[in-house]
Amino acid sequence: MEPGAIYFDGNSLGRPLRSTLEALTDAIQQQWAQGLIRSWDRWRELPLQVGDQLGQSLLGACRGEVVVADSTSVNLYKLARAATAAQPLRRVVVVEEDNFPSDHYVLQGMAAFSDLEVRTFPVDPDEGWHLQDLDKALDEGVALVCLSHVSYRSGALADMKGITRAVHARGGLVLWDLCHSVGVVPIDLTDAGADLAVGCTYKYLNGGPGAPAFLYVRQELQERLRQPIWGWFGQQDQFEMASTYRPVQGIGAFQAGTPSILGALAVAEGVRVVAEAGMPAVREKSVALTSYAVDLAERWLEPLGFRLASPRDPLRRGSHISLHHPHARHLTGVLIEDGVLADYRAPERIRLGLAPLTTSFCDVHDGLRRLGELASEHLRTSEAAT
Amino acid sequence: MEPGAIYFDGNSLGRPLRSTLEALTDAIQQQWAQGLIRSWDRWRELPLQVGDQLGQSLLGACRGEVVVADSTSVNLYKLARAATAAQPLRRVVVVEEDNFPSDHYVLQGMAAFSDLEVRTFPVDPDEGWHLQDLDKALDEGVALVCLSHVSYRSGALADMKGITRAVHARGGLVLWDLCHSVGVVPIDLTDAGADLAVGCTYKYLNGGPGAPAFLYVRQELQERLRQPIWGWFGQQDQFEMASTYRPVQGIGAFQAGTPSILGALAVAEGVRVVAEAGMPAVREKSVALTSYAVDLAERWLEPLGFRLASPRDPLRRGSHISLHHPHARHLTGVLIEDGVLADYRAPERIRLGLAPLTTSFCDVHDGLRRLGELASEHLRTSEAAT
Repeated sequence: MEPGAIYFDGNSLGRPLRSTLEALTDAIQQQWAQGLIRSWDRWRELPLQVGDQLGQSLLGACRGEVVVADSTSVNLYKLARAATAAQPLRRVVVVEEDNFPSDHYVLQGMAAFSDLEVRTFPVDPDEGWHLQDLDKALDEGVALVCLSHVSYRSGALADMKGITRAVHARGGLVLWDLCHSVGVVPIDLTDAGADLAVGCTYKYLNGGPGAPAFLYVRQELQERLRQPIWGWFGQQDQFEMASTYRPVQGIGAFQAGTPSILGALAVAEGVRVVAEAGMPAVREKSVALTSYAVDLAERWLEPLGFRLASPRDPLRRGSHISLHHPHARHLTGVLIEDGVLADYRAPERIRLGLAPLTTSFCDVHDGLRRLGELASEHLRTSEAAT
Repeated sequence: MEPGAIYFDGNSLGRPLRSTLEALTDAIQQQWAQGLIRSWDRWRELPLQVGDQLGQSLLGACRGEVVVADSTSVNLYKLARAATAAQPLRRVVVVEEDNFPSDHYVLQGMAAFSDLEVRTFPVDPDEGWHLQDLDKALDEGVALVCLSHVSYRSGALADMKGITRAVHARGGLVLWDLCHSVGVVPIDLTDAGADLAVGCTYKYLNGGPGAPAFLYVRQELQERLRQPIWGWFGQQDQFEMASTYRPVQGIGAFQAGTPSILGALAVAEGVRVVAEAGMPAVREKSVALTSYAVDLAERWLEPLGFRLASPRDPLRRGSHISLHHPHARHLTGVLIEDGVLADYRAPERIRLGLAPLTTSFCDVHDGLRRLGELASEHLRTSEAAT
């Protein structure tokens, strides 16, 4: 990043760690170039090892419940199909209206290829959603509920435990999308009684563009659920070359084809660094960063027509906030040109992602001041034009 | 690789190119670390660009028919489901008995989740298979035939054009697995009238362990076929964040989630180097290498109980050969310990992959001489023991 630039997109693509290049250089020069095919002895279990590392240090999962593999969409597909196939009398999948678009796409695709029905329930685009709205969407036909732990737009943080309990009371399973919470919000899947989860690693885990995603299946469900993409890495004794699929026991069966080794190694670096910092410290800085941004926005930006489009209570949000402004699209453009990298999110929101490991309080101060200056300028120009 | 070692596994994991590390270092230090989220402007189309580069230079595909994405298994799943969904009155998928095991697994999984039937037809494990055996398996119920272009075990090379024509005559589609032929055998999907293809990039394309695979869909089929994993990278104007899936036109819709960018860049290096060498030269050296290996095996190894388990005609094989020996498993072990890296393939075969870019005639000479010496020793020891 050029000197003086400010990065508010660590929630979209985390910055590379210094150790990432070192780890990949070693993997290419030693493991791949020297070890060659023999390195599969160490690579074979890598997706499970990195999965355990991630699961145990950041997700509150037990050993053997997480694997790093494929993309978030492919993992969501595998788990959602597994969950619905296991409950043939329940043909409805419920998804929050404001869930990340590609989660909708995966479920819509599943419905188009089957007799499943996708049902949405309303969500407040700024404040997140309320249990009673979800509750109205639940009935005896619901096999699965797909929810984001942290909303990609508002940053609203869901009550994982309460919601999981409510869905379980109606007999369904819950699949959590952890993309916007993993590595930045404390997660305890075991304590929450969570069933299934997926997430990406290129945001707060700094795994790099398109790094492999992860998936979680609660141990007791692993026997009962069967994912649909039967592949080489789910097979027992793969080098026996049996032509009949006999899946391994446990989370390994939720893998499909050959996993990206360089990708998994990059993920391992990100997980290690976040775990070293420790989730309590990471969360503390995250809350302080978003709170500081909200304070400054109130003081400097609300008078210029901005409105906080995220929960005001820091305990009810993740590590990004959104600011609504009628000219948000234009303002995001000039802000980026000015070296403050932020995201426009429809409708009419500037989204500021504050990655605790790499965002400073000075970044927040300077970035919001700059946004205020640009907005004032824009206001003056618009007024002069009218 | 340690000095003196010989690598006969370039058909399983190709060696890294010198430019791979350079390309990935640049991608991490410049594109990712400096460009950050802005680099998605150039990365967004990368899977399609590398797909075109691969398709046009090595597959005889037209522009817009190939994309680099996901793993071979996930791609096979997407295309096989797309092909069978488009032909609801045909419920049979035919697969060669000796196809790569994971191709079987993917199809078995599809059948377990639907009303599809998987039908196999016999293949000679050494010589490959005959059109009449396939023909017997074809009838009006067959939607799709899945075949390997080059057999993973024997190296037998299929007549892509003749077979495709035979299947088309019965109204089915053909899906070619190009894992063992891409980058080493001339392929002309357009001339062959091929429908669908998948393949990996970590063998003769030197993309690295778990590098993204590719898929091909003939242009005229792209409108008609709809793949089942509807994802973020198949969506029109993805950053409009529409919650309804509207796929892009063309091959892009066969993508699912966020693609591995480092993986695609490594693939681009491999494709570039093979294309620079030129497929005629690559094939010429490949034929010379396997022919030399067959000659030496006849002279040195047949007297020791080995038998060629690959087609003797070099035009009927890819770039690896298999040698049958009753103690192949044991001999492969001692051969590898001795620094000659080869593969054991059940039943009772040593497989020698001769990657033209990185295998020398001296490697073939020295490796086979060493195998002969070890086999003689083994024979003496076994005789002494009896």
